[in-house]
Amino acid sequence: MEFAALKASELSAYLRGVPAVHKLLGEPDELDIVEVGDGNLNYIYFASNAKTPEMSVVVKQAPPFLRLVGKTWPLTRERMEREVAALRRFGALCPDHVPTVYHADSQLFLMVMQRLSSHCILRQGLMGGTIYPKLADHLSTYLAHTLFFGSDLFLSPDIKKQAVAAAVNTELCRITEDLVFTYPFEDHPSNSYSAALPRAAVDRIRRTPALRVAVGEMKWAFMNRAETLLHGDLHTGSIMVNEDETYVIDPEFAFYGPMAFDIGAIIANLLLAYFSRDWHGRQDGGSPEAYQVWLLDQVRAIWSGFTAKFLSLWREHEGRSKTHFIGDEPDRACADAFKARFMQQLFTDTLGFAGCKMIRRIVGMAKVAEITRIPDDSARAAIEVRCLRCAETLLVERASMTTVDDVIDLAWKVEAAA
Amino acid sequence: MEFAALKASELSAYLRGVPAVHKLLGEPDELDIVEVGDGNLNYIYFASNAKTPEMSVVVKQAPPFLRLVGKTWPLTRERMEREVAALRRFGALCPDHVPTVYHADSQLFLMVMQRLSSHCILRQGLMGGTIYPKLADHLSTYLAHTLFFGSDLFLSPDIKKQAVAAAVNTELCRITEDLVFTYPFEDHPSNSYSAALPRAAVDRIRRTPALRVAVGEMKWAFMNRAETLLHGDLHTGSIMVNEDETYVIDPEFAFYGPMAFDIGAIIANLLLAYFSRDWHGRQDGGSPEAYQVWLLDQVRAIWSGFTAKFLSLWREHEGRSKTHFIGDEPDRACADAFKARFMQQLFTDTLGFAGCKMIRRIVGMAKVAEITRIPDDSARAAIEVRCLRCAETLLVERASMTTVDDVIDLAWKVEAAA
Repeated sequence: MEFAALKASELSAYLRGVPAVHKLLGEPDELDIVEVGDGNLNYIYFASNAKTPEMSVVVKQAPPFLRLVGKTWPLTRERMEREVAALRRFGALCPDHVPTVYHADSQLFLMVMQRLSSHCILRQGLMGGTIYPKLADHLSTYLAHTLFFGSDLFLSPDIKKQAVAAAVNTELCRITEDLVFTYPFEDHPSNSYSAALPRAAVDRIRRTPALRVAVGEMKWAFMNRAETLLHGDLHTGSIMVNEDETYVIDPEFAFYGPMAFDIGAIIANLLLAYFSRDWHGRQDGGSPEAYQVWLLDQVRAIWSGFTAKFLSLWREHEGRSKTHFIGDEPDRACADAFKARFMQQLFTDTLGFAGCKMIRRIVGMAKVAEITRIPDDSARAAIEVRCLRCAETLLVERASMTTVDDVIDLAWKVEAAA
Repeated sequence: MEFAALKASELSAYLRGVPAVHKLLGEPDELDIVEVGDGNLNYIYFASNAKTPEMSVVVKQAPPFLRLVGKTWPLTRERMEREVAALRRFGALCPDHVPTVYHADSQLFLMVMQRLSSHCILRQGLMGGTIYPKLADHLSTYLAHTLFFGSDLFLSPDIKKQAVAAAVNTELCRITEDLVFTYPFEDHPSNSYSAALPRAAVDRIRRTPALRVAVGEMKWAFMNRAETLLHGDLHTGSIMVNEDETYVIDPEFAFYGPMAFDIGAIIANLLLAYFSRDWHGRQDGGSPEAYQVWLLDQVRAIWSGFTAKFLSLWREHEGRSKTHFIGDEPDRACADAFKARFMQQLFTDTLGFAGCKMIRRIVGMAKVAEITRIPDDSARAAIEVRCLRCAETLLVERASMTTVDDVIDLAWKVEAAA
């Protein structure tokens, strides 16, 4: 039977038939159902008690295609089960930063989850120049917990290997393999370019061997390194925030991949926000610099917060379990040296993935609002060129950039050269 | 029911009941059954036509434990199914160098395979100083074909991911994780040391941060990089040879892991043969040098043969499929640069794994005959120290050793310093 999106009346009747959800909504006779319609992949509804609208849940249903494109891009609906499993797993590890799943239906490929009604999408907040004082602390906590507890640094090898096999996510990984790591570097019909983006900038992406080699290495790492259960699509549109709280949503791309991929995604999106701030910050006669400083501070604080928390989880675990990943040793010098090397490699990989993620948002199919909403073609193109320049350096020089301050310096330098 | 090894009469009756095997053996009334008893993991029999003994097959059965240790080290018998699957896969890719499986029984965890009666175990042949003129050509072909065709360089991403999940081999990977990458570097009860091996040499393995860091990195790579279907235990005891033919046997450790692990295993074992030759070659008044030169020539020829054949398979595949792993490009400069970088990284990893494999054979539980059969304690210890020294350099300096000649030079230098 052909898929048809649920009508409001159908969804309302369905939710009244799920006791746990009905109770949560105050057992109303009438529900208000609104289709939000901003999902790239799925149908998303808000369902609220008609008399007490603050009693509200989110309903998410996976159609058998990519919603952004339509029925010509089929996708299996089982992705909803993977998303539910990932939300539950990440929620168990990090309950303060992951919305609660109240109900999941594996027949309808639908789930009911916590409504975050006082929060906005981080990307929107950053475009508006809002300061989120707890953002870096929250995101570094989220990253440290989700990346550490899914890995061989914590799990026993048998549990880890089962988890890898259970989290295979061929279809959505394929989207990343193509749209992040391959098509943007080709003359591919799915790419789209700003009107004023210089042809030379696009050519440079395609023809610079050092850049293409680095991207190839990141693609190989993405496809082969099953290090931990990743979110898999951790851009600023997958994060909901307010002054006090931060939630990470939409982990349908979750799979076992390289740790640095999630960290790189966040850093890439903060850098896109940074470069595009040069335009958004000047609207209404403003000045971009102060908020740009704040954005780069977030890059620094997320990386250093992540490092401190990840290492602390690692040390605690070693203390409790009386083992080291590298094996026992008379003193801790070798285990500490291994940790330092491990974090350095993670940083290198993070920069590589960040570079790929930035480039795909400029020359690939899926764009970001902070760039596309710049109506002035030449201003937009100038910012896009800076994003590409920064991304190229991140990729090509990732092994020699050893501290997060090197990234901050690079961003300032690219901005200043403009 | 407790496992009991098959009696000759039981096995004989069983084989007569398998038409394909019975026919292959010339449909004899009587079979000669000999238990060979040299397997670490399994029971192995030769079954031959009593009147025409050249009509013969090998029968291999997995007991529910590690045979080398006994019932105190239980292992699930499903490992036989994985070995059969790997033999069939490798056999399809490389029929000239993998024995044929005639029959597999998933109830009895038993298989019947090609008897290689005119071949000897390569380790024995190397101890005897035999020259195998086709060895390097055959092994480099085997490596290039098995490693390439299991990887994302050839397979479509969906087939590859299914293959990874299907080849999970937790139990036998655990043996490698412990016995190759962990216990040898600890003060672990499973380790054993030569009487005369200096305490300082053992301490150095345990306490040198750069070495422990390198080993930790190789362990992480082994556990996380699902690059291709590996043999997983490719030492010179898993290779059968004569002047004309080379067969790779015993892939029960097969799983999706880092390509360099199989290459590193072969190179490690050739280097162990090289250093121990200093003793074996002097028996009966001989001189070790000529054969040592031949052994190092094999290291060089295997790596360079592998490189040439692997790249050739890669280029052929790209030509046929009209795609590049890194995506299309106007000319081939970027794809070629990526290939060069890929092979360089593979070489680096190969040296790292080779170093780990050498060390475990000196200070870990499982030894190699070319070392243990040296009856003179101090001669043996001197050779062991050289093996450890070479292994340490391979691990610690793997990124700066860029050609196989660097490995040859290292081996000569360590030997000359003695």
